Amino acid sequence: MSKTIDITELCLRDAHQSLLATRMALEDMVPACADIDQAGYWSVECWGGATFDACIRFLNEDPWERLRTFRRLLPNSRLQMLLRGQNLLGYRHYEDGVVDRFVDKAAENGMDVFRVFDALNDIRNIRHSVNAVRRNGKHAQGTICYTVSPLHTTETFVTMAEQLVALGCDSICLKDMAALLKPQPAYDIIKGIRKRCGDAVRLHVHTHATTGVTLVSLMKAIEAGADGVDTAISSLSLGPGHNPTESLVAMLEGTGYEARLNKACLHRIKDHFAALRPRYQAFMSNIHGVETDIFDSQIPGGMISNMESQLKQQQAEDRLEEVLIEVPRVREDAGFPPLVTPSSQIVGTQAVFNVLMGRYKVMSSEFADLMLGYYGQAPGERDPAVLGLAEQHAHKAAIVQRPADLLQPEWATLEAAATALPGCDGSEEDVLTYAMFPQVAPGFFESRARGPKNLGRAPESAAPKSAESGALAASPLHAPVTYNVTLNGRSHRVSVAPVSE
Amino acid sequence: MSKTIDITELCLRDAHQSLLATRMALEDMVPACADIDQAGYWSVECWGGATFDACIRFLNEDPWERLRTFRRLLPNSRLQMLLRGQNLLGYRHYEDGVVDRFVDKAAENGMDVFRVFDALNDIRNIRHSVNAVRRNGKHAQGTICYTVSPLHTTETFVTMAEQLVALGCDSICLKDMAALLKPQPAYDIIKGIRKRCGDAVRLHVHTHATTGVTLVSLMKAIEAGADGVDTAISSLSLGPGHNPTESLVAMLEGTGYEARLNKACLHRIKDHFAALRPRYQAFMSNIHGVETDIFDSQIPGGMISNMESQLKQQQAEDRLEEVLIEVPRVREDAGFPPLVTPSSQIVGTQAVFNVLMGRYKVMSSEFADLMLGYYGQAPGERDPAVLGLAEQHAHKAAIVQRPADLLQPEWATLEAAATALPGCDGSEEDVLTYAMFPQVAPGFFESRARGPKNLGRAPESAAPKSAESGALAASPLHAPVTYNVTLNGRSHRVSVAPVSE
Repeated sequence: MSKTIDITELCLRDAHQSLLATRMALEDMVPACADIDQAGYWSVECWGGATFDACIRFLNEDPWERLRTFRRLLPNSRLQMLLRGQNLLGYRHYEDGVVDRFVDKAAENGMDVFRVFDALNDIRNIRHSVNAVRRNGKHAQGTICYTVSPLHTTETFVTMAEQLVALGCDSICLKDMAALLKPQPAYDIIKGIRKRCGDAVRLHVHTHATTGVTLVSLMKAIEAGADGVDTAISSLSLGPGHNPTESLVAMLEGTGYEARLNKACLHRIKDHFAALRPRYQAFMSNIHGVETDIFDSQIPGGMISNMESQLKQQQAEDRLEEVLIEVPRVREDAGFPPLVTPSSQIVGTQAVFNVLMGRYKVMSSEFADLMLGYYGQAPGERDPAVLGLAEQHAHKAAIVQRPADLLQPEWATLEAAATALPGCDGSEEDVLTYAMFPQVAPGFFESRARGPKNLGRAPESAAPKSAESGALAASPLHAPVTYNVTLNGRSHRVSVAPVSE
Repeated sequence: MSKTIDITELCLRDAHQSLLATRMALEDMVPACADIDQAGYWSVECWGGATFDACIRFLNEDPWERLRTFRRLLPNSRLQMLLRGQNLLGYRHYEDGVVDRFVDKAAENGMDVFRVFDALNDIRNIRHSVNAVRRNGKHAQGTICYTVSPLHTTETFVTMAEQLVALGCDSICLKDMAALLKPQPAYDIIKGIRKRCGDAVRLHVHTHATTGVTLVSLMKAIEAGADGVDTAISSLSLGPGHNPTESLVAMLEGTGYEARLNKACLHRIKDHFAALRPRYQAFMSNIHGVETDIFDSQIPGGMISNMESQLKQQQAEDRLEEVLIEVPRVREDAGFPPLVTPSSQIVGTQAVFNVLMGRYKVMSSEFADLMLGYYGQAPGERDPAVLGLAEQHAHKAAIVQRPADLLQPEWATLEAAATALPGCDGSEEDVLTYAMFPQVAPGFFESRARGPKNLGRAPESAAPKSAESGALAASPLHAPVTYNVTLNGRSHRVSVAPVSE
């Protein structure tokens, strides 16, 4: 009689991305696959930008081969990926033809469910990917990035859900990447979407566990009508990760909702990752337990540590308080973008610039692009004065169209560049790998033949023992981008690294 | 407009008992007291059996002096303690006169709220303490130990609540010491009590975080009408400890319930214990994250590790599965006692005996006493055959009266024995210390003059570095009791140690 709640298991993607710096090797996931396939999950998230990047940057693993392996080992499961809309798995906007090729190839290699989001919640950056997924007959999950700001009301999110449904999405995901979603807003938003969009629309909720309160938010979302939620097996859960799958199962018992998962399978999956996890000690997140300061500052934890390290480089550690006060101002000037990769880094770095050098005396090119619409449309009004400064800085005008509409077809160029690289096998998959990560792909193509490198097993994984090198090893996946900024004859080095997604 | 939810902060008692093997020194709590006193808690739990024991066994601290210090430093706070009913803070039944003296002295030294429980939920073992608390004009909180068994229904707990109200308790606490309380039962029980006992009765809920689901249970309990819940400041929370205070605060926002706590105070309390915690590394619980196996086995985690170590001593590690199957049988034979100190050890040890030597071929004296009613009345029917074996083993008959009714006045004897000890100051407090812990008190009286020993600061705390000695240091507070059992000429050494409360 009770309603089945569908579970998306995160252990193969976001869980180790959040807890083990995305370093888990495919061979360490393989032994769990038979149980994962039989556990009764609605879907198994197993692919995304950071895992793709980590494969070629650190693990000498072909991410497409990883996908095909999951397809083979999880024959009964929906495979799910996270897709950054028009950014695909990269950090720039791609022309629609590249988006089509990417989605076609992902579908062909076995992907079933595409969770498509945009950092600014700009529906125009989501549309083309969703169409490509549907053209392939796969499941398109339109995604709302949850954030907190004076502009973001229940109505904001409900309206976006309505737009995603109108796009033809097969389901809607409310994505809380910073663990800011409290129980009552979770209830109100899901209830609002349910009411506006009807009983037929499938609603999923993704949260992180960082603030300690989001399992309650999942309960309230379910009471409000959510169909599915994301969890991670307990041995790869909590901290900056996610709520434990087994706790979710227990939570629902007797409530009229039920997660029909096979407990024996869950138990073996748990034991597998529990035994494995210590081998990735060197890459483990420093965050344990809960961090509730985020609620007050509304600044994600990873973003604060980025800003701290930027300030440290300037011998200005004592100015963090000022930066924390500056962040919401900069965010307001930019029209209250959600703080998620890449907007979190762009806003955070600009706040550091403003404190160290005066408000908007120096502006990063990325911040100018954000102001000028080159990432998409901001949720709210942008400050006209800052917009003017951005135009001056960037020597270009603000745009109102979809950023990708400015791009020329680029597949031929990408193909020519990729296939010229030693070790490139000429496949469309290799061209796409190059297109996503043009700096990293060449090295990977050259070394690919040497085969995967398991950092949890290889001797070099034992190397970073000291606190410093351990922290280095566990630092964000992507090498920071370093800016040299000269102002009044004084040179500043400021580096920017991703926070999370 | 919203209902205020009262918070009992656990950082000074159960939090460090659960996470740091009860080793925290008073001097490490003192700097947090001003903020704790101003945070707006309903009460501050700060005293109980294990903290009293740890004071005199490990910290060379006078537990009465600790209480007086809290009274002085927390002038605006209700001080709260956990009292094991007729067992007070010890492990045997005390005669009513001793109960009176203890409660009088605790009240006189500053205690406000007495949370009184009995391991068997035998109301007769709670009654005299409650009367003593009320005679002192203090707050008597009657406590229901939550457990799961075929006998324990919502009605069972509601009926017990009704009995506690009839005793004259000022409030009722539903105490979930094993983190087994799922959201729906939490709702049903609190709703049932509220309905049966009326709106006037004050209802509190205590849970542990071990299984990862109990913050949701607190939410449901609050929705069902609970007035207060227990939490611990985030830096001393989670794992085998409790739900974080700050997460509880965030959870309620916008819900129509509100924990009116001062966030700035919470922040400083958090920072204080976050900085302190690493110094107690050697005593830290090995349990991190969540443990949901408890839901299936219904055997608390600490109890399993006890049985594992008993089996190891017999070179019978491979028989744990059999023991885990035997535990529920033994528990059923004994009339389904809740599994909490001391019943958890008694039932667990008997299950080990049964597996190793045949069912009830050997019976511990404690198990015989449990069967025969010497700990109080079991919740359900006891197995008549096993009852007969218990009588044979113990050479005594089953009783139906309250165990303490068999005891003669004992204060004069205790006083004479205590005051004869070197270092005893002759106070009633010292006599009570001796009465609670007759094996430990003599050594403490002798060494007391040398002053407190801070294990988080003293050089010896740095000593246990290896995994083994670390585990040893973090082992349960009380030295295990070792039984020598000889059967068919083969000698068995079996040791029993407390689980938790």
